[in-house]
Amino acid sequence: MTTFHIEFQPIGRHWPCQKGISLLEAAREAGLQLVADCGGAGTCGRCRVKIIEGQVSPPTSEESLLLSAADLDSGVRLACQTRVLGDLVVHIPPQSIVASQRLQITGADEGAIVLDPAVTRRTVELLPPDLSDLRPDWQRLSETLALAPNSCDGRANLAVLREASPSLREHGWKVAVFIRGREIVGVSGPEAPCWGVAVDLGTTKMAGYLMDLTSGEILAADGVMNPQISYGEDVMSRIEYANRAPENATELSKVVVDSLNDRIIQLCERQNGNPASVKEIVIAGNTAMHHLCTGLSVAQLGAAPYVPAISQPIDLLASDLGLKASPGAYAHFLPNIAGFVGGDHVAMILATGLQDLPGPVMGIDIGTNTEVALAHQGQLFTCSCASGPAFEGAHIHHGMRAASGAIERVRLNGSSIEVATIDDVPAVGICGSGILDAVATLVRAGILSAPGRMDQDHPLVREGDHGGLEAPLCAGKEEEIVVTQKDIREIQLAKGAIRTGIESLLQEAGIDFNDLREIIIAGAFGNYIDPASAVAIGLFPPLPLGRFRQVGNSAGAGAKRVLISRAQRAEAARIALKASYLELMSLPHFSQLFAESMFLSPDPIGQR
Amino acid sequence: MTTFHIEFQPIGRHWPCQKGISLLEAAREAGLQLVADCGGAGTCGRCRVKIIEGQVSPPTSEESLLLSAADLDSGVRLACQTRVLGDLVVHIPPQSIVASQRLQITGADEGAIVLDPAVTRRTVELLPPDLSDLRPDWQRLSETLALAPNSCDGRANLAVLREASPSLREHGWKVAVFIRGREIVGVSGPEAPCWGVAVDLGTTKMAGYLMDLTSGEILAADGVMNPQISYGEDVMSRIEYANRAPENATELSKVVVDSLNDRIIQLCERQNGNPASVKEIVIAGNTAMHHLCTGLSVAQLGAAPYVPAISQPIDLLASDLGLKASPGAYAHFLPNIAGFVGGDHVAMILATGLQDLPGPVMGIDIGTNTEVALAHQGQLFTCSCASGPAFEGAHIHHGMRAASGAIERVRLNGSSIEVATIDDVPAVGICGSGILDAVATLVRAGILSAPGRMDQDHPLVREGDHGGLEAPLCAGKEEEIVVTQKDIREIQLAKGAIRTGIESLLQEAGIDFNDLREIIIAGAFGNYIDPASAVAIGLFPPLPLGRFRQVGNSAGAGAKRVLISRAQRAEAARIALKASYLELMSLPHFSQLFAESMFLSPDPIGQR
Repeated sequence: MTTFHIEFQPIGRHWPCQKGISLLEAAREAGLQLVADCGGAGTCGRCRVKIIEGQVSPPTSEESLLLSAADLDSGVRLACQTRVLGDLVVHIPPQSIVASQRLQITGADEGAIVLDPAVTRRTVELLPPDLSDLRPDWQRLSETLALAPNSCDGRANLAVLREASPSLREHGWKVAVFIRGREIVGVSGPEAPCWGVAVDLGTTKMAGYLMDLTSGEILAADGVMNPQISYGEDVMSRIEYANRAPENATELSKVVVDSLNDRIIQLCERQNGNPASVKEIVIAGNTAMHHLCTGLSVAQLGAAPYVPAISQPIDLLASDLGLKASPGAYAHFLPNIAGFVGGDHVAMILATGLQDLPGPVMGIDIGTNTEVALAHQGQLFTCSCASGPAFEGAHIHHGMRAASGAIERVRLNGSSIEVATIDDVPAVGICGSGILDAVATLVRAGILSAPGRMDQDHPLVREGDHGGLEAPLCAGKEEEIVVTQKDIREIQLAKGAIRTGIESLLQEAGIDFNDLREIIIAGAFGNYIDPASAVAIGLFPPLPLGRFRQVGNSAGAGAKRVLISRAQRAEAARIALKASYLELMSLPHFSQLFAESMFLSPDPIGQR
Repeated sequence: MTTFHIEFQPIGRHWPCQKGISLLEAAREAGLQLVADCGGAGTCGRCRVKIIEGQVSPPTSEESLLLSAADLDSGVRLACQTRVLGDLVVHIPPQSIVASQRLQITGADEGAIVLDPAVTRRTVELLPPDLSDLRPDWQRLSETLALAPNSCDGRANLAVLREASPSLREHGWKVAVFIRGREIVGVSGPEAPCWGVAVDLGTTKMAGYLMDLTSGEILAADGVMNPQISYGEDVMSRIEYANRAPENATELSKVVVDSLNDRIIQLCERQNGNPASVKEIVIAGNTAMHHLCTGLSVAQLGAAPYVPAISQPIDLLASDLGLKASPGAYAHFLPNIAGFVGGDHVAMILATGLQDLPGPVMGIDIGTNTEVALAHQGQLFTCSCASGPAFEGAHIHHGMRAASGAIERVRLNGSSIEVATIDDVPAVGICGSGILDAVATLVRAGILSAPGRMDQDHPLVREGDHGGLEAPLCAGKEEEIVVTQKDIREIQLAKGAIRTGIESLLQEAGIDFNDLREIIIAGAFGNYIDPASAVAIGLFPPLPLGRFRQVGNSAGAGAKRVLISRAQRAEAARIALKASYLELMSLPHFSQLFAESMFLSPDPIGQR
């Protein structure tokens, strides 16, 4: 079958694909989710791309309806209607890609959410005070809005009280009022936008989404590295750094807030606006990120039994955190479940609808710390697995992050091993999905035994320079990338930790893995792995591959839902309350289960 | 009758008194209210003073019971038991004088208030988390206290969330928790005090009271000038200053907050403590002070129709205002009634119980702006009179503040005028009570006609150097203090404004001044005036002098009540809601009433 190469711009991702498939499918295979509200039927017109170079199928009648002649002349096409007929260079505009999470989450795109944001805008015109009506400004405003006269009962929103009187007069008593529950959180000119920002605050990356709270529309999106990474790649090293001195914790909080502010400013600038239009912020992060961003103590997260300072959802004034937004705007933090099962996992559960899916369903968020959730018969079990950074390439002899030149696929071709690298350049290392493939390939080739020992007599195995056995992946190539016996141990520890979590939850729920209707694999790494390889080494239980679903980063999707829907916000709180957290260390058979789980076989449990 | 002189230390007040009266009475005459819970019966032992110099009556049997021999030897005495037998120098310790407001307010001393502060302390011991109990710290704490698990619903108190986890661990899970309604506002060591600070934030002076919220006891008190005075003596000039530039408003806010912080620190230091022990602050100020302290806009207070930004009571985090206190502590601001009837007037009404007294009762708070309240048949009428600073000595030819050398009393002795000055030193000017006396004396002497014209043929009247007639008050003395025709006009405007308010409220309530059971005169100036003089010139209506009651500064007393009693806090809110504000400028007969009210006669109304 003919294979062509596609270069997706401006992301710079190269991907091989079969002749004749649609660009929508090709992009999906390459891990790029395009907006496709109609599911690829050519009716929504949202998956616009531009062909820069190469041969594709001619425009369809659907495209003629949805695209202008000028657009078509300049190479603009709908990805779902356009078939690959040669090597291509394709440009994907941000509008077509940023909302991509919609498609990643079956039955859970934002379109299905009823718009009901925490903050709503009302335009009102007030009678100005005169000698016959001397009501104070705040009372006048509250009464005009038919809010309870005591609507600042409890703590007054000082910033709003301060802006209200001047704003009313500046705008001639006709203003837009931003209302949050019973509280007024902003008084602006009548045309002021009502924007919100949803943030997926990850350990490695942070993504921000600017949304119009009056329409639910995503206006702009942006992602950058979490700058805390320079204080430690994993949360535990950042917790340790924070705990060494109070100013360290302040520093970690400051760098993340500064970076969030940069995001907020840039997102608003793209819409020719500024943060004063941002009336609500929603942040989903793991418990450590949550605590470090809000300035809560992380001392107790750094030592057993690793409890959070707080788990329930919290609303803070954005200004209290130093976040740039409208003066009275709040930042809502999704609830945590446990010290290492945080708001990002809640967001994932929410976005996938895991808790409401029929039949036992498992959700797995693979990272340095891997969270696993199991929904069964109305119950929700969660746990956290200390999987470590091996799947991110750390502690692996030739390990690297998923960047150009990283081996990302490894296949057995007859008796030889074939590899594919990111950007199809000569291999310089191996990333997570590659090392997973590599171990699976070594198992399939009979090089690795179930206990994880390399067969030293196998022709593909040799004694390495560094001491110990190794298997070269691209023997004879310029750069010889090898998998070492020690790498195997690292992967066994990582996959053993995750499988232990999976098995423990199954045991807790009293079901067998065969009962699982689906395993949802979330997170960036999870999006790129080959489930077959994961099954081959026993990272995942040996279910038919059709039962695995890779949804990519869904924490951002969950955060967006919580931003535009109070019902979803309540649902997130309900998920966190409902979730029972299983502390694996407290299980009587933990050690035995963990030892078994390290076996490199699809069904290692009981193999002792 | 023999008259002796007493010097009260450390206040430095000199006062003449009759031989044989008790030191308690002498102090009261001098305007110093000593603690006397027993009403002077010699049983409470709280009016301790120390005789530094001079002759007094020997100790009574009551004193022998309540004072130690060592105390008695060193000159310590109970003021109520000690009679003046010669010129004296007496030292009054702060404990004996600070609680003085109690006595000023009939039936309204703090002792009668049931202690029920907004913040209470509970000491709890928690089970530390372990693998079998992984509840987050905040949930553990809330549940141990049997608070709703969602007790940080609404805006979380970030400072408290931040301190809770470290505090729980630092104190071995045994802590004092400070609870405010359903909210935790502090987590400290088990021995941490629970203090509160009540502030009377006046235009001229600010007084702070440190109280123990677990006992209701006043621990310390302190008063200083309001430093905003350097930006203008009266509120209107400060409002104008603030409105000239945003940074001016910030500056006014900052100087008052800085000064409040100095007070708080010093009050705490006197108890060997620090502001971290202050769990609640209550502030009573007029509307302008309220707005300038909280940073609310005062633009609309500077122009008709002079409406407040907000009137309802507000709770703000002390830290949001930059006030030094426990990190989670709130500052509660008493409600305002109108643009020029503020929380200090509410506090006065509360402290005097005006609204609940039987029969029509009027309360008058004389100042640059004079507030008048009238309680009648369950209704409460208020108004504000632009009396100006004449009674504070401003715009008066020889006017001065009430300081050493100011004429404070003027009497007609036969055909000559006699004066008394503060500290009995040669006169250097005339203060408010002196100018009031002076005008009354000139009226009594027939020198001034009811319309306020000086009799140029009267021997005590002469042509002044400054043009216009004048009456010298101490002719032939070193410094000749005079009252000019222009001074008379100023006093007429001031007293006319106040009398207009009084009459307007009476008309509004449909009663005659004779119906008034009592007129309560509040405020520092009101405390020193001679009601007979006020009646003589028609500042007050011609009621029997027994119906006037001078209660001194009662805003502080009201603030203290609100600090230690939620019922009183609710009552203050009820007073503000119940009060109907009468805008004098909107009255159809305002000009006529004002013109009549300027007449210098006890009953000027209708004299046209």
